[in-house]
Amino acid sequence: MSPLPQRIAAETLGTALLVATVAGSGIMAESLTHDAALALLGNTLATGAMLVVLITTLGPISGAHFNPAVSLMFALKGDLGRRDTGLYMFAQFVGGIAGTVAAHAMFALPLLQASLKARTGGAQWLSEGVATFGLAATILAGLRFERKAVPWLVGLYICAAYWFTASTSFANPAVAVARSLTDTFSGIRSVDLPGFILAELAGMLCGLALMSWLLAPADKTLAEAEGQP
Amino acid sequence: MSPLPQRIAAETLGTALLVATVAGSGIMAESLTHDAALALLGNTLATGAMLVVLITTLGPISGAHFNPAVSLMFALKGDLGRRDTGLYMFAQFVGGIAGTVAAHAMFALPLLQASLKARTGGAQWLSEGVATFGLAATILAGLRFERKAVPWLVGLYICAAYWFTASTSFANPAVAVARSLTDTFSGIRSVDLPGFILAELAGMLCGLALMSWLLAPADKTLAEAEGQP
Amino acid sequence: MSPLPQRIAAETLGTALLVATVAGSGIMAESLTHDAALALLGNTLATGAMLVVLITTLGPISGAHFNPAVSLMFALKGDLGRRDTGLYMFAQFVGGIAGTVAAHAMFALPLLQASLKARTGGAQWLSEGVATFGLAATILAGLRFERKAVPWLVGLYICAAYWFTASTSFANPAVAVARSLTDTFSGIRSVDLPGFILAELAGMLCGLALMSWLLAPADKTLAEAEGQP
Amino acid sequence: MSPLPQRIAAETLGTALLVATVAGSGIMAESLTHDAALALLGNTLATGAMLVVLITTLGPISGAHFNPAVSLMFALKGDLGRRDTGLYMFAQFVGGIAGTVAAHAMFALPLLQASLKARTGGAQWLSEGVATFGLAATILAGLRFERKAVPWLVGLYICAAYWFTASTSFANPAVAVARSLTDTFSGIRSVDLPGFILAELAGMLCGLALMSWLLAPADKTLAEAEGQP
Repeated sequence: MSPLPQRIAAETLGTALLVATVAGSGIMAESLTHDAALALLGNTLATGAMLVVLITTLGPISGAHFNPAVSLMFALKGDLGRRDTGLYMFAQFVGGIAGTVAAHAMFALPLLQASLKARTGGAQWLSEGVATFGLAATILAGLRFERKAVPWLVGLYICAAYWFTASTSFANPAVAVARSLTDTFSGIRSVDLPGFILAELAGMLCGLALMSWLLAPADKTLAEAEGQP
Repeated sequence: MSPLPQRIAAETLGTALLVATVAGSGIMAESLTHDAALALLGNTLATGAMLVVLITTLGPISGAHFNPAVSLMFALKGDLGRRDTGLYMFAQFVGGIAGTVAAHAMFALPLLQASLKARTGGAQWLSEGVATFGLAATILAGLRFERKAVPWLVGLYICAAYWFTASTSFANPAVAVARSLTDTFSGIRSVDLPGFILAELAGMLCGLALMSWLLAPADKTLAEAEGQP
Repeated sequence: MSPLPQRIAAETLGTALLVATVAGSGIMAESLTHDAALALLGNTLATGAMLVVLITTLGPISGAHFNPAVSLMFALKGDLGRRDTGLYMFAQFVGGIAGTVAAHAMFALPLLQASLKARTGGAQWLSEGVATFGLAATILAGLRFERKAVPWLVGLYICAAYWFTASTSFANPAVAVARSLTDTFSGIRSVDLPGFILAELAGMLCGLALMSWLLAPADKTLAEAEGQP
Repeated sequence: MSPLPQRIAAETLGTALLVATVAGSGIMAESLTHDAALALLGNTLATGAMLVVLITTLGPISGAHFNPAVSLMFALKGDLGRRDTGLYMFAQFVGGIAGTVAAHAMFALPLLQASLKARTGGAQWLSEGVATFGLAATILAGLRFERKAVPWLVGLYICAAYWFTASTSFANPAVAVARSLTDTFSGIRSVDLPGFILAELAGMLCGLALMSWLLAPADKTLAEAEGQP
């Protein structure tokens, strides 16, 4: 890990580039085709590829959370202090909004918009819960068993989750807020944000709880192998 | 490997997420496009990506079979005891059905449906046989030569098999049963299940037999290198 | 490397599965869509994925050539004896035809067909030459610098070459012959085979010559590091 | 690194194959479909795959820049001498044009064309700046933290950048010049080149400046670990 200023900069930059990719590739896709599956495919590949790049290159600096639900999860695990958690989250929300602005500027759109796309209801909330549950489980088990592969695992997981959840898997409160500020392919009405964010946090908590139990024996084995009591 | 409760939980969870991905991405794809190739492409990428994630993250816990044909293969090889084999299979069938329910719930569909999609006849059975033959061969040779790469090999193999077999490569009795309970893109009539499952088991047996012979000299070399008689 | 019977079996099986994937995914794609780019995309992904799997799993047994031009290249380099080269090539041609038969059987088509698809002329031959030149260069440099990555490099190279050459990059005389026996997406008229095969051999020779010079200093450095004169 | 003749040949060959892939896959895609998103998808996958292959196989010879902005960045960092930088750039421009000629020859088009595709204005320049900023950051952080992964990181980054920038991310002055000589999918009017190239250089400088600060603590830690003052 790097000193705090670099860590905060990395979280801001990473979240900005992530949101610029999500929003930008959605705008590009919608401008090129009328087929919504093809648009989602372009959106999926760009997002997954960028996640692998960002987590590999910025992970050694800040841990590459880019996601308040993930930072909160590490805080609950005791891996991230209270002050740092707050700063990380602030950086993620600011970076996310900067990413929307950057995408709009690159496509010559008004820098901020209010999304009109409705994403609400029980099925959508369940989707967000499942999506964030899976993301949390992927990160925790990945870090435990195959730390080097985590960038790939997260990128691949999100690629799958874009397609197998009805909400296309936001799974990230900062990204959700940033996406409420674009009235394009990836947008979400700001009024729908609370439901999404609560569902994401609930999914994260379920993932953390389940993986704590599922990984406990493996953690114990590891500790013994290292001679720790 | 973890203790039995964790192993069974991992097989249940993994098969559930696998089926949720197969069924859910099929529903998503059909809702977005009328082009069946594009739908299969979304289905393919989501399934392949999820397989890499699930096998990497749950493999160290349970072996990440998620497939009764694979558990049976390891039982025949003597790598999985009789009791564990039964428990694994039970967990896979239960997890698979839970995955269908989860996909339906996320897309606001009735939780269980009876599929009307006919998948039968010699060409379909041959396809399933070839698909499962190849899956067995991939797993056995992968474990033998490049253990770390097995998640990728299985994910890539299934991506290819979705396209080169006429049945889109179920290659998994638990997934086949779970898919009989969804009347969407990935469904199969329950009456067609026996043919598929028998073909899958036959393909697995052929793969096991061929690879036993093909890998025997390499196994012998390895044993000698390790000073075993 | 394994004993000769296993090596020949691996070359036969690998070439059969490769051709079954190329031909089968083409048939699947044509049956699902009228968009030729989408068909080529499905064909590309299946072929690339299968190449990674086959080269990883069968490479330690036979070297995973699956291609007479590649076996000839290793013969010219002195890495494959005359008898083995002949046996490898025979296995590849037999395996390739078996792959076409398998694909046809899975899709309930006549087991062998005569392709009517014309692929001829200078631009096509240049394409095949460039495609095989690049394949040879990829293999030789990959083996030299990053042996473990060769399955990925070949799979990715062929994915790219399906799109950047006008011939969709056969780059393999055994696969070309096998594809002359299917009148589907991936077919080629048998009368067009000699032009393709000659172009492939010419491309391979150019790749071998160029890489011999390009890699010579690196080879020398390696030899010195290992204390060889 | 290899001796200078091999290095220059590798830069020429690599840039030629890169441009042949960008231009050739664009021509192929346009000939197969009327859907521009699908065309961009084929273009994206071919380019990303080829980048992984070229950087892996030619990187140990020349460093695999294939891009005057990247060579200039290494010159500014003090990693590439003045004479070599000039020779690298010359090789990249020559190789790029050779790549356009090769693509045209393979598709039976006039060997050189003047592109009529307008790509100009503030949004396009911002896109090129962002694209090249991200490329520089990816390369610098990748080399610092995960040197072996750089071919993948660059390939994945460009896949994402084709979609999230409005300019489809040229991010390379030599490729931009070469693309001005094809009046097909990937072309750019020669009159629009100066804006693109200036934006690319500005983006590279921003990336170099930011990463110098962001990576400084990690560099210091590394130096201390190696006992250097």
